[in-house]
Amino acid sequence: MSASPFIVVFALFDRVTQLDFTGPNEVFWRLPGAQCVMASARGGEIRADGGLTITNVQRLADIERADLICVPGGFGVIEAMADADFVREVRRLADGARYVTSVCSGSLVLGAAGLLRGKRAGCHWAWRDLLPPFGAIVDEHRVVRDGNLITGGGVTAGIDMALTVMADIAGAEYAQSVQLGIEYAPAPPFECGRPELAAPQVLTAVKARLDNLRADRHAAVQKAAQLL
Amino acid sequence: MSASPFIVVFALFDRVTQLDFTGPNEVFWRLPGAQCVMASARGGEIRADGGLTITNVQRLADIERADLICVPGGFGVIEAMADADFVREVRRLADGARYVTSVCSGSLVLGAAGLLRGKRAGCHWAWRDLLPPFGAIVDEHRVVRDGNLITGGGVTAGIDMALTVMADIAGAEYAQSVQLGIEYAPAPPFECGRPELAAPQVLTAVKARLDNLRADRHAAVQKAAQLL
Repeated sequence: MSASPFIVVFALFDRVTQLDFTGPNEVFWRLPGAQCVMASARGGEIRADGGLTITNVQRLADIERADLICVPGGFGVIEAMADADFVREVRRLADGARYVTSVCSGSLVLGAAGLLRGKRAGCHWAWRDLLPPFGAIVDEHRVVRDGNLITGGGVTAGIDMALTVMADIAGAEYAQSVQLGIEYAPAPPFECGRPELAAPQVLTAVKARLDNLRADRHAAVQKAAQLL
Repeated sequence: MSASPFIVVFALFDRVTQLDFTGPNEVFWRLPGAQCVMASARGGEIRADGGLTITNVQRLADIERADLICVPGGFGVIEAMADADFVREVRRLADGARYVTSVCSGSLVLGAAGLLRGKRAGCHWAWRDLLPPFGAIVDEHRVVRDGNLITGGGVTAGIDMALTVMADIAGAEYAQSVQLGIEYAPAPPFECGRPELAAPQVLTAVKARLDNLRADRHAAVQKAAQLL
């Protein structure tokens, strides 16, 4: 590891799904020399889902560089994709970063920044069909690596993504020590975390809840893709 | 579900391990009627690990009741156990709650509040030996239920704990829909998340890092246990 800090920037926006970035943050801050920075287009405060308000958020434009950028997803991703300042700053930091990462629908922001053209990429299972308009090749794996681009599946996939990247940066043995430190030996109460595993009525219920978002998200993706 | 809100209180303190509560928060806010409240002894802001600052934190004393209380752990748990206001308010809210939960070393706070006497309880694997001074019976499972007390293992165990409690509150099918919504089909890059699974040198490295905390934590537990 070099003596200079390894700068990890989490690019946040209102109505972000907090576990999309809090999961990776809990892993990445344990990297020796890591400096984790919460940032958004305008800085200040971010209102995440679940009643969580994050403060001391920096302005992306004030951040000189990132070694790693991580873009989470969430309900606010429609507005995030349409925010030209946000998308431009994500692109700038990503261009200079060793690792460009996303979790869940955060890959749509990377798409809007033109970073997915011709690349394999993942997304939350319900939103993978929004990747091709950005020129991405859909990959259904939980953690998808294409060069220095590492995109995760939905929400909890961020923990697996971060540990995978950690192994690349600091070696497998160090990554294992972090995994042991956060006692990551998951034991989900059900086997239903992917659509092909869930009972049909469970899948139907989740799809019905997400259908409210579908038309707006498709329109936002089409609009963002036309700007590329 | 009843029409009145189901109040979930996260009892926070400085230097909390953020994933201990952000994991359960991402699950619990999806409970129909849930109202998730971040609270601490003095309210205002909380500085978690990883560079995350939470604001809009309420004062525990201002919260009338909780349906569910969740106490996370973290580096600041020594000070949390020694904070008489914090421990008293946790006890008061727990006494009226349908569910009393903790993640990681958060169970030590429940112990300091006198809530573990004669109960089976879990903790982060490295700190289970701190439970007996509080009269608790150590249980090495990832999610431990004894009556209305549900205690989780280290950090990431909070997600499994929350989904387990969700099934109890809202039924297995609804809990499954939440698990699918957050794509919780974990695929850790390594099989090392419990001490008995990790390579010997990995376990040695983690124990060495935690040994710095051991003397202070033992002293804090002895002191808190004497007050019971």
